[in-house]
Amino acid sequence: MAKQDRAIRTRRAILEAAAIVFDEKGYRAAKLSDILERAKLTKGALYFHFTSKEALANAVLDAQVSETPVPSPQTYKMQEYVDMGLLFAHLLVSDPLLRASVRLSLEQVPEINRSSPYVEWVERNTRVLTEAKECGELLLHVDPAETARITVGAFGGMNAMVSTITPPLDLEREILTLYRHLLAGIAVPSVLLRLDVRPDRGAQVLAEAVLEPAAVTPGVDIA
Amino acid sequence: MAKQDRAIRTRRAILEAAAIVFDEKGYRAAKLSDILERAKLTKGALYFHFTSKEALANAVLDAQVSETPVPSPQTYKMQEYVDMGLLFAHLLVSDPLLRASVRLSLEQVPEINRSSPYVEWVERNTRVLTEAKECGELLLHVDPAETARITVGAFGGMNAMVSTITPPLDLEREILTLYRHLLAGIAVPSVLLRLDVRPDRGAQVLAEAVLEPAAVTPGVDIA
Repeated sequence: MAKQDRAIRTRRAILEAAAIVFDEKGYRAAKLSDILERAKLTKGALYFHFTSKEALANAVLDAQVSETPVPSPQTYKMQEYVDMGLLFAHLLVSDPLLRASVRLSLEQVPEINRSSPYVEWVERNTRVLTEAKECGELLLHVDPAETARITVGAFGGMNAMVSTITPPLDLEREILTLYRHLLAGIAVPSVLLRLDVRPDRGAQVLAEAVLEPAAVTPGVDIA
Repeated sequence: MAKQDRAIRTRRAILEAAAIVFDEKGYRAAKLSDILERAKLTKGALYFHFTSKEALANAVLDAQVSETPVPSPQTYKMQEYVDMGLLFAHLLVSDPLLRASVRLSLEQVPEINRSSPYVEWVERNTRVLTEAKECGELLLHVDPAETARITVGAFGGMNAMVSTITPPLDLEREILTLYRHLLAGIAVPSVLLRLDVRPDRGAQVLAEAVLEPAAVTPGVDIA
């Protein structure tokens, strides 16, 4: 194995170990020693990649968007909008790195950059909704940036509620219900009729997704 | 002042002090000594009302629904549904007790009962949406419990996002936008036309609200 490959694998192993520890204990209570033990690494190997717990947490936060595959292109842009959310919900159920990232973005820790996943998700959603609007798939009144904020905020809230309530709710089912609620007020009827919002859509999108992250359009204003 | 009145005031003062400390520092980092200092009370006075930090946090969580006034009755049940959310958003902007309660419900602290505000809000929303459905104000497909869960989860998520993003977004405006997105997919057009969703609606609802909490219907299933 080339040196560079090994470094990438080690970095990923550290991130996954950190994610599991952050997810279990929360940021404050998580210790670097717990992470080292779980990743089976020395302090030196860890510090080669991350200089602090803060840097580790920020890398876990960044992984939320960068590690989520981009759904493949569809005939309707609104299907791409839905697919983005259903795929993320599908991955969240089983991926500890993504779960920890979402968990961290809700913690009251001023030293980590909790806003970056929100900003990136809102940008991705704004982009696809703007394209949908240009294609005539959205109702006249829809403001893509506004709807993107509602989508991202509501998604995060459903995820937080689902894991707080006892017994826990089914995240994929709740997110599907969320999209069904939002779509009726934003998409034109002829597009609504053609959208696939079946329960297994998230799994199907994953099977067809590509792994490169979408090109980032600079300067999309989310406020 | 009668002994009982004094006890009620002291309890409220402790809760407000606890709320401010929980909101600033989060549950784990908050110390009983910080709360005592802020409330200007002795340990004895505090322990008379609350036996632990956990009990204090649970009382702050419970205040989220019990301290929120009930909007006054309206011609349309769907106006009551909207009013409930807009009033809470309006109060959240300035009430430290409510802010701390919402903050706590997002923390990863197994020993406090974070699910109770979610459950109570979903029950309140289910109740008013069920009445709206009986009055013919909702579209045929709407399941009141399902829509109640989406409303509560999405509201919580918008609130979390608004305070995480820099610069922070305007909570009341975002919650209004959320309701506008949801309403179109659930209410019949003739009711939509008659709903007041203007920016100052939250303040107006507060002015007209009553302070007694709504009677609780037992056994509303939120799952």
